[in-house]
Amino acid sequence: MGRKHNFNAGPSTLPLPVLETLAANLVDTKGLGLSVLEMSHRSKDFGAILAHAKETLAELLSLPADYEILFLQGGASQQFAMVPMNLGSGAYVTTGIWSQKALAEARIVSEPKEIWSDAAGGFCRVPSPDEFPQAPEGANYLHYTSNNTIAGTEFPYVPASSLPLVADMSSDFLSKPLDVKPFGLIYAGAQKNAGPAGITIVVARRSILEDFRGSASVPKILRYATHLAAGSLYNTMPTFNLYACSLVFDWIKREGGLEAMASRNQAKADRLYGVIDARPELYQGHAERGSRSRMNVTFRLPTPEHEKRFLDEAGRAGCIGLAGHRTVGGLRASIYNAQPMAAVEALASVMESFTDS
Amino acid sequence: MGRKHNFNAGPSTLPLPVLETLAANLVDTKGLGLSVLEMSHRSKDFGAILAHAKETLAELLSLPADYEILFLQGGASQQFAMVPMNLGSGAYVTTGIWSQKALAEARIVSEPKEIWSDAAGGFCRVPSPDEFPQAPEGANYLHYTSNNTIAGTEFPYVPASSLPLVADMSSDFLSKPLDVKPFGLIYAGAQKNAGPAGITIVVARRSILEDFRGSASVPKILRYATHLAAGSLYNTMPTFNLYACSLVFDWIKREGGLEAMASRNQAKADRLYGVIDARPELYQGHAERGSRSRMNVTFRLPTPEHEKRFLDEAGRAGCIGLAGHRTVGGLRASIYNAQPMAAVEALASVMESFTDS
Repeated sequence: MGRKHNFNAGPSTLPLPVLETLAANLVDTKGLGLSVLEMSHRSKDFGAILAHAKETLAELLSLPADYEILFLQGGASQQFAMVPMNLGSGAYVTTGIWSQKALAEARIVSEPKEIWSDAAGGFCRVPSPDEFPQAPEGANYLHYTSNNTIAGTEFPYVPASSLPLVADMSSDFLSKPLDVKPFGLIYAGAQKNAGPAGITIVVARRSILEDFRGSASVPKILRYATHLAAGSLYNTMPTFNLYACSLVFDWIKREGGLEAMASRNQAKADRLYGVIDARPELYQGHAERGSRSRMNVTFRLPTPEHEKRFLDEAGRAGCIGLAGHRTVGGLRASIYNAQPMAAVEALASVMESFTDS
Repeated sequence: MGRKHNFNAGPSTLPLPVLETLAANLVDTKGLGLSVLEMSHRSKDFGAILAHAKETLAELLSLPADYEILFLQGGASQQFAMVPMNLGSGAYVTTGIWSQKALAEARIVSEPKEIWSDAAGGFCRVPSPDEFPQAPEGANYLHYTSNNTIAGTEFPYVPASSLPLVADMSSDFLSKPLDVKPFGLIYAGAQKNAGPAGITIVVARRSILEDFRGSASVPKILRYATHLAAGSLYNTMPTFNLYACSLVFDWIKREGGLEAMASRNQAKADRLYGVIDARPELYQGHAERGSRSRMNVTFRLPTPEHEKRFLDEAGRAGCIGLAGHRTVGGLRASIYNAQPMAAVEALASVMESFTDS
C-alpha cells in the first residue's frame, strides 16, 4: 500500500529518510554485526550514538553551558509527577487537559497554586502576554503547556516571569527556534517532533536538576539528580528509541535546523487555517485566532454526520488520524515537523472540495 | 560484517527472524501504509497488536483468569519503587546487587525487612529451599530476584511462602515454564528474554493490583490500579517496542513454548559450565554449583591479564559482550532464549583452546 497521509497526534509521522535508515540498520546497525536493539546501553558503540544525539540536540538549541539534556522514560505523564516531586510546589497555568493532568499530579505530591485557567471557556485560547499572571509568593517555578494538542492552541510567545519557567513542550519542542534561558526545565515526550514514543527529553538548567526540593520519600529513580549524575544511564535506556531520536535530530539539522522547521510548519498551518477561514459556513476552528496551534489544527463541521462523512472522504484520499481526541470529538490535523506539505495539500483539497450536502 | 556472537547481558541478542520481520515492517507495518513507530497507541491497528501480544503471553504462561498483564515503562528499576509504593512494606531476600537496589528503594518509601542476604559471601549462591526464610510478621509480600545477572546465580525452585511472592524476573522470565499462582506480582524488563528495552512487563494477581496500600502522596502514574484500569494505555505506549515484544512472544510459541526454551537454555548452560568444570586450573566459576544461572555464566581466569587476553581471543572469534559487570569484573556470558547454540559453541571452542601461557 502507498504511504498514508498520517495526521495522528502522536505517535505521529516520522521523516521517511529516518524510517529508511532505521530499516536499513535494523538487523545490523552501522555494520557492527548486531542491531542497536541488541546493543548494551553501556557499550562504546551505543555511547557514541548517545553522545552524538546529545551534541546534535544541544547544537539545534544553541544550548548554554549551564544546561543539561536528559533522556528518560515514562513520557510527559511521568514528568507531571517528577517535576513537583523534585522541584516542590509551583504555580500552574491551565490551558488544556494536559495542563489539568499536570496540576492534578502536582496536587498529590505538593501544594501547587493554579494561577490562570480557561477551563470554563473550553480551552480555546491561551492568555495574552498582557494578562499572563504574576508569579505568586512561595512558588518555586511557573508551569505551563506550550502547545495544547487536544484544544489546538499554542503560546505564540515565551511568558515573562520572575520564576523559572517549567514547560511541557511535548508537542511543539523542536518545531521552532527556542531560547532556553528563561526556562528552568523543559520536558517533552519524543513522539511528536523528536522521534518515536519511548524517550522523554528533559532540557534543564543544571542547578535546577541538582537542587532537590522534594520529600525524603521520593525514590532514587524519580530524582533528576540521579539521572544527571549517571548521564541518563542510571538504568537501561531504550537503545533503539534513542537511536531513532538521534536520526531525527540529524534530519532536522540537515533540513536547515529549527528556523527551517518553523518556516515549514507555519506554511502548513497557514494552508489549513486558510481553508477553514475561507469556508466559515462549513468549518469552525476551535482555537481563537491569536492562540492557534501550528501543530494541531482543530475544527468542527456543522454536525457529527458531516464530520463522519468528512472522515470517510479524507480516508479515501489517504488521510488518516483526523478524528479529534476521544475526550472532545471534532476533527484534528496534527502537522508536526515530519508532516510533508504534500500531506497537508491532500487534506486541504478534501477540505476545499467537501460539500455541505 | 557477519553477525556477531553477542553475549551482552541486556539489551541482548534478539531472534534473527524477529529482527528480519521488524526490518521488513519498519517503513510500512503490515501493509497499513505507515510504520508502527507512527501508529497512534489508541488506533484500531495498534489495538490489535497489543491484544495479540497479551493473548500470546497469557498463552505462554497458561495465565489463570485472575491474573493480569501490564506493559509499562521505566524498567525493573522503576518497579523497585513502584512495588513498595503500591504494595506497602515487604520482606526482602537479597541475592545480589539488583536485590540490594530493590531493597534500597523500598527503604525510601516503606519499612521493608531484609530476611536473608548473602552480601557477606559475595553473592555466589541463593538460599536452598531448606534455609529459605519464613515470612515475618507485618510484611505484605516477599520479594526476591529469581536470577542474578551480575553474580550469575538463579533460584532453581520457586520459594514456598505464606506471603504473596513478588519477583524481579527480568533476566529469566520466559526462559522456562512458570506456574504464576504462588506469585502476587512478577516484573521484568523486556530486554533479556522478552524483547528490546523500553517495555516493562508486569504479571500480577488482579486483586494485588487493585488493592493500593501505599501513601496518599503516590502520584497517579505510579499506581498499578491506574494502568490496570486503562489497559496499559493510561499514557502513550512505546508502540514499536511493544510490537517487537509481540514478535518475540510469537517466536517463542512457534519454537515450542517455554518447555522448548528451558531445554535449549539448559543445554547451552551445560555446555559452558562443562568447559569450566573440565579446566578448573584455568576457569573459576563464580556461582556455587547448586545456584548456577542458566542465563548468565560468570567466571574468572587466574589473572586480569588472562582475562584481557581471553576477551581478545573471543573477539577474534566474533564473540562480544563478555566482560563482567562493571561493578564486579571477571567474565560473563549471557545466553538468553535468543542466543543460538552456535554462539555458545563458538565461545566454548575459545574456552577449550585457550592456553595458560
